Amino acid sequence: MKITKSAKPKSPATLRVSATMNVTCPVPLFTSPTIQLGHGSGGLMMHHLLAEMVFPAFANPRLAQNHDGAVFSVGNSRLAFTTDSYVVKPLFFPGGNIGSLAVNGTVNDLAMCGARPLALSCGFIIEEGFPSADLKRVIESMKNAARLAGVEIVTGDTKVVDRGHGDGIFINTSGIGLIEGDWEISPRAVEPGDAILLSGDLGRHGIAILAEREGLEFETTIESDCQPLHEVVAALLQAGLPVHCLRDLTRGGLATAVKEIANDSGYGIRLDETAIPVSDTVRGACELLGLDPLYVANEGTMIAIVPGERAEEALAAMRSVPEAANSVKIGEVLPETNRRVMLKLSLGTERILDMLAGEQLPRIC
Amino acid sequence: MKITKSAKPKSPATLRVSATMNVTCPVPLFTSPTIQLGHGSGGLMMHHLLAEMVFPAFANPRLAQNHDGAVFSVGNSRLAFTTDSYVVKPLFFPGGNIGSLAVNGTVNDLAMCGARPLALSCGFIIEEGFPSADLKRVIESMKNAARLAGVEIVTGDTKVVDRGHGDGIFINTSGIGLIEGDWEISPRAVEPGDAILLSGDLGRHGIAILAEREGLEFETTIESDCQPLHEVVAALLQAGLPVHCLRDLTRGGLATAVKEIANDSGYGIRLDETAIPVSDTVRGACELLGLDPLYVANEGTMIAIVPGERAEEALAAMRSVPEAANSVKIGEVLPETNRRVMLKLSLGTERILDMLAGEQLPRIC
Repeated sequence: MKITKSAKPKSPATLRVSATMNVTCPVPLFTSPTIQLGHGSGGLMMHHLLAEMVFPAFANPRLAQNHDGAVFSVGNSRLAFTTDSYVVKPLFFPGGNIGSLAVNGTVNDLAMCGARPLALSCGFIIEEGFPSADLKRVIESMKNAARLAGVEIVTGDTKVVDRGHGDGIFINTSGIGLIEGDWEISPRAVEPGDAILLSGDLGRHGIAILAEREGLEFETTIESDCQPLHEVVAALLQAGLPVHCLRDLTRGGLATAVKEIANDSGYGIRLDETAIPVSDTVRGACELLGLDPLYVANEGTMIAIVPGERAEEALAAMRSVPEAANSVKIGEVLPETNRRVMLKLSLGTERILDMLAGEQLPRIC
Repeated sequence: MKITKSAKPKSPATLRVSATMNVTCPVPLFTSPTIQLGHGSGGLMMHHLLAEMVFPAFANPRLAQNHDGAVFSVGNSRLAFTTDSYVVKPLFFPGGNIGSLAVNGTVNDLAMCGARPLALSCGFIIEEGFPSADLKRVIESMKNAARLAGVEIVTGDTKVVDRGHGDGIFINTSGIGLIEGDWEISPRAVEPGDAILLSGDLGRHGIAILAEREGLEFETTIESDCQPLHEVVAALLQAGLPVHCLRDLTRGGLATAVKEIANDSGYGIRLDETAIPVSDTVRGACELLGLDPLYVANEGTMIAIVPGERAEEALAAMRSVPEAANSVKIGEVLPETNRRVMLKLSLGTERILDMLAGEQLPRIC
């Protein structure tokens, strides 16, 4: 999903390069003559596209992948740098809109690098004829989300495309964050015995978008979980906890994120289905729509991977922040080096979880 | 055109806030109920949109505008941060394509802040059905442009929108650069007596795009000037020249850039028409098409503003770099504080230059 440059604190010459690409793609898997919606899904099709076309072209000794942002040193500072374009449809949905999403999404990508968000950029691609009042609403939401996240939007760009060649508005936000410690937060830091902690219940963003798009009505309105997660990360780091990996559960959902981490860490991971919170409304909507909540996108929910013996401490730190008040342990990293993710079902049996294969729901973010 | 955060080297508490917004927009000038192509032109309509909707919302004590990027300090380093989305149509044109443009454009925005480009992000918004072979060509061009500019693409994002809701591919690149000195390069540093130096002839990018789009043929193919300018800037700075302001002449062309600088510096500026180089082919095409080359976009041509008495030295430094081999002096900053740009014509008379008013040529970059 991400191209990543990862540097150890002060010795750029000793950077490690992940060999995951060759492991996950031993034979050419991107053979499509055209780009399909599934290539933007965050799942397997996107991984194939990136692994075969993007990563080799942009390869350099510091390029890695499958992380939410790049980390590198400038002077005496460690910075995180990340980018995301937002093409969500509809633009306005219960719990947020493309503006709040664009700010929170990039704030969260920085947070997942263990960084404190410092500054955001904002690039608008607006379709000719877009209502000025809607643009104003979007900008107001960005302003409010930035204030809540304690980050400033410092530079921007506005492009307008002719009618029929865009879709209302697309927004790119890129962000710079400051990593105030020498921790390495990365799938490569994951170890057997680590606990997988989840910050809240799954699937609200995806179902909110789908309901709005398809005009579905549920007993209770399902609101997106769109929210900033930097304070959850700060609580973990300020408590001095040895955080091994962080990941927000956007496109592809929990299952895809955990599978990515298994691939990149080299270890197997077991999740416990009965421990994974999904609200009754979301579960009902998923059953109705034939969706698996483990693959539905979230925009304010994350996992933290910490040593098993520190799990309770870490959960306490996470729960101290309102955005992660309902944090729970949902699984653990196994000693097996098979990169396999197993889901322990309520009946005691297990099934294998893989990445999202095609496209579950396009334009979710 | 740009929202900018501008910081003095090591004392963020003493940041100056530009009051230009109130000066240029004393009364509401953005009253359009919908967004029009002209709002993306880089000219007056865009300035009104930004001044009345974007700048007030994102206002913070460090927010300024009308500069190519934000400048701020992190630890013991001064960084530049910039973003641009590229929506050029057609995607491939003589002298470049959307990929090389996306890398060079952002490299140049960093350079105009006096920064050495360090790292770029890359966000693709691809329309479903876009040929994979074209994506490959674009990525190869980005790779080559990044190598030539000595910059790494370190993080990225890929989104796919459904057929009919995009236009092939849009690319956002954001960039981080390192400012290796304590210079302040900004319209506010401009002083009366400063010389305006131009790095090459005008209008090649705009005319190349227009010719390709409209199927026009000239005796010689006009190629875009798309190229990186960071070495031109490095030559100026390494020569120890007191550079006051730098600007690449993209949307809105030379005239709009100079008018922006006049507005933000507070001073009048006089340009000498006979000194401004325009090739015969571009001039002929402009006459045919009813365009003014002073307003046509460039993607590898810049102005540098330096003290008048250092102009010859600065020209020598610029000419030492192939990308600016034909640099010339084209004007000067006047003592009058009327923010007016005058063009001295070949007949000896003068005319006022204002910003590009509407849209000369949409989707130029």
